[in-house]
Amino acid sequence: MKFNISKKELSKHISIAQKAISSRSAMQILEGLLLVAENNTLTIIGTDTDLTIITSASAIVEEEGKIVVNSRLFGDIIRKLDDSDIKIRIEKHNMNIICNKSEFNITCQSPDEYPMVTNFEEKNSFKISSEELKEAIRKTSFAVSQEDTRKMFTGVYMDCTKGINFVALDGFRMSLVKLNKETKESKSIIPATSLNELSKILEDSQVDVKVGENKILFEFDNTKLYSNLFGGEYFSYKDLIRDNHTTKVKVDRGLFQISLERASLLAKEERANLIKLEIKKNSLVISSNTEIGNVTEEIPCQTEGDELTIAFNSKYLLDGIKIIEDKDVVLNFTDSVNPCIINTDSYTYLVLPVRLAK
Amino acid sequence: MKFNISKKELSKHISIAQKAISSRSAMQILEGLLLVAENNTLTIIGTDTDLTIITSASAIVEEEGKIVVNSRLFGDIIRKLDDSDIKIRIEKHNMNIICNKSEFNITCQSPDEYPMVTNFEEKNSFKISSEELKEAIRKTSFAVSQEDTRKMFTGVYMDCTKGINFVALDGFRMSLVKLNKETKESKSIIPATSLNELSKILEDSQVDVKVGENKILFEFDNTKLYSNLFGGEYFSYKDLIRDNHTTKVKVDRGLFQISLERASLLAKEERANLIKLEIKKNSLVISSNTEIGNVTEEIPCQTEGDELTIAFNSKYLLDGIKIIEDKDVVLNFTDSVNPCIINTDSYTYLVLPVRLAK
Repeated sequence: MKFNISKKELSKHISIAQKAISSRSAMQILEGLLLVAENNTLTIIGTDTDLTIITSASAIVEEEGKIVVNSRLFGDIIRKLDDSDIKIRIEKHNMNIICNKSEFNITCQSPDEYPMVTNFEEKNSFKISSEELKEAIRKTSFAVSQEDTRKMFTGVYMDCTKGINFVALDGFRMSLVKLNKETKESKSIIPATSLNELSKILEDSQVDVKVGENKILFEFDNTKLYSNLFGGEYFSYKDLIRDNHTTKVKVDRGLFQISLERASLLAKEERANLIKLEIKKNSLVISSNTEIGNVTEEIPCQTEGDELTIAFNSKYLLDGIKIIEDKDVVLNFTDSVNPCIINTDSYTYLVLPVRLAK
Repeated sequence: MKFNISKKELSKHISIAQKAISSRSAMQILEGLLLVAENNTLTIIGTDTDLTIITSASAIVEEEGKIVVNSRLFGDIIRKLDDSDIKIRIEKHNMNIICNKSEFNITCQSPDEYPMVTNFEEKNSFKISSEELKEAIRKTSFAVSQEDTRKMFTGVYMDCTKGINFVALDGFRMSLVKLNKETKESKSIIPATSLNELSKILEDSQVDVKVGENKILFEFDNTKLYSNLFGGEYFSYKDLIRDNHTTKVKVDRGLFQISLERASLLAKEERANLIKLEIKKNSLVISSNTEIGNVTEEIPCQTEGDELTIAFNSKYLLDGIKIIEDKDVVLNFTDSVNPCIINTDSYTYLVLPVRLAK
């Protein structure tokens, strides 16, 4: 196996494939990248068996072949080389790397044991711009459950029925992105960890999304990302969204965020992060009472409907407020035990209140 | 105790005093900042008992007084407030903070138990620009010992005999900064941790350095930093520097650094970080042989004197090369068991070789 490749091209594609490599792996082969040289193309494959990334770079291939090389070491070496052409020669299990006056020899592994993606059957597919996809990931992946006890809720639900809905919920809040896009019907729960890695390698381009039974494929530029899907029936999230609001508060988003952050400084010292919102006619007061002190924040706002006192875990309220980019937000309430709902054009954030002792 | 102060001024001086607060403290009082309001000045004091910072800000003091407030909480609150005037009122152990529409009440502690610097007797003093002092700290503090077993070597030796020498050594290398400055004679070992904190708060100004028996004081702008000194007789570092070099290598510093870094990629996987330098007429070859592979780097250079093969822990060689800013460096050798010495105008770096098995 022999090929020549530019340092820039190689190090870019190593970085892409490395996103699938887990830092702690039980199997040594999974710490490696599979390199395949053929047809003047170098294909680099990284996998942790749940997530697989396959990316192709142009190279001058003098002799075709396959090899597995330690991902971290190979990446570190290539990135440190001069910005020049690199000659790579593999004989048996030795990789020889030459770039200007630098020469490395490192030990490689056989490619025979490297796990490959098999049996991908497409059930649904659509095209989406990388921008839209990144935005949907950014606005949902933060809201998935951090607990491994119910695996499926550590994933983002992609519901293709009427349009495409991306949904994340963790029992305290829900984040929902709606896209107007016609597709066939499919329902899949994608691990948020896979989506976060995808987000890092997406460049400005169209993405072909291909939905399978147990796997999903994202294809763009010269890269394919396969992720396993979680099984099971997702929560019927649509039932959470009601429209019978009796209190509405329109407030400057930035002002609301900084006031919440200040009010949280005391609240976060205690486990519950508890803050209280008191809504009166055109007045919103945020307060928090803890053992170490208390805080009151008054914010100008426009209100509509009933007066209300309601409490939240400030972290969950803040997460949603931070992700929105609009100048103003409207908070919709029903009563002190039902969720607060924030709607923007294509985005809905819902957060459950904390019941206050009478 | 009552005072008004601008948010910017207060948060700047809190950040300065906080540099003396240790993140893990055995005594609760040491997690606090001492605030003293008098003569239209707010003085903020932070200490971990080894290091004490006293800094003064202009304030409108309506009622004088003293109080201790939790450093982290107070700092977090002040930094998050609007960029505006802050009113602070202390009654008994409650601090009331008002800024625009934000109001906090937090619990404080009595100032009676707060440790104060006492008995400072000046033995020697000099003025130095903050630039020169920062540079001396940057070029020495990295080379102190990381091991607590011989405390004094975790400090930087400030030797005021002929001029001022700043010295750090750890048994593997030595870093020496020489300043041409006339002072009285004094010898002190300053904890590198104190110097690193000092470096963070130094602005562009003159620094008054006052050397005591067990303490040193750095005074600048409206800030005083006291540090305890280590006791004991320092190593006679001047004996390490010889001048009988038999091999000299002049090399481009940047090129040498990147080549060393590449050669270290394999070496750092093993404990010894071992790399070998082979010096022949106008040729320098760096190599490293490890279980996972080998590397050879050839660097253009100008040599003078004998041929030589010598080995180093690459980390120690690199540390010195990285700290120097000159375009070229000259490496001076005697033989394969004596140190390599690098000299620039006011700076000397010395690194001991590793003996190679025959």
